[in-house]
Amino acid sequence: MFLPKFDAAGLVTAVAVDHASGALLMLAHMDAQAIAKTRETGFAHFHSRSRGRLWMKGESSGHVLKVIEIRVDCDQDALELRVEPAGPACHTLAPSCFYRRIEADGSLARIADA
Amino acid sequence: MFLPKFDAAGLVTAVAVDHASGALLMLAHMDAQAIAKTRETGFAHFHSRSRGRLWMKGESSGHVLKVIEIRVDCDQDALELRVEPAGPACHTLAPSCFYRRIEADGSLARIADA
Repeated sequence: MFLPKFDAAGLVTAVAVDHASGALLMLAHMDAQAIAKTRETGFAHFHSRSRGRLWMKGESSGHVLKVIEIRVDCDQDALELRVEPAGPACHTLAPSCFYRRIEADGSLARIADA
Repeated sequence: MFLPKFDAAGLVTAVAVDHASGALLMLAHMDAQAIAKTRETGFAHFHSRSRGRLWMKGESSGHVLKVIEIRVDCDQDALELRVEPAGPACHTLAPSCFYRRIEADGSLARIADA
């Protein structure tokens, strides 16, 4: 059975992955309420640690994440949301939040396809 | 420049992804020391929150993760390690820690290819 192992703050880490391409899109946190809303509505909801509240990804931008499947890791403290994105996943309008790689000298370089 | 935004515990979240297939493998945490050792050695090191120490993934199993590239997300509080795994990434010997999906009734079902 699914029995998420929440941390001291009541959160698990959630990673959104494009279900079609397998690309890593973004990382955020979910509490019990965010998990329940996501399962109930079929759209990714998270818990904002900075704002201290539930938010639906795309609630202002329209770039929602339709959840196709939810996977859980071996110790049930992390979730993989397999999603169909309605637009760029990142607030910078990059397709993925992970759009830069770290170079040997510590500078960041933009990745062509991310 | 790469300036990781550590949380109150001095950690960032790190996601390991198979560089060849793009598959999500595992999720763990890194402190400044784990990031430095990973960049220095080319093998994924993490900070174990339960054991309170640095560990190299595969130090006992041999299932190390050779790091091809490190990506950072928009707000620099999460890392994507693009890796070449030397064996199953999960301690259960599944290729990925995310090998089960949550069904509508809350049960967990094994995923054929994960």
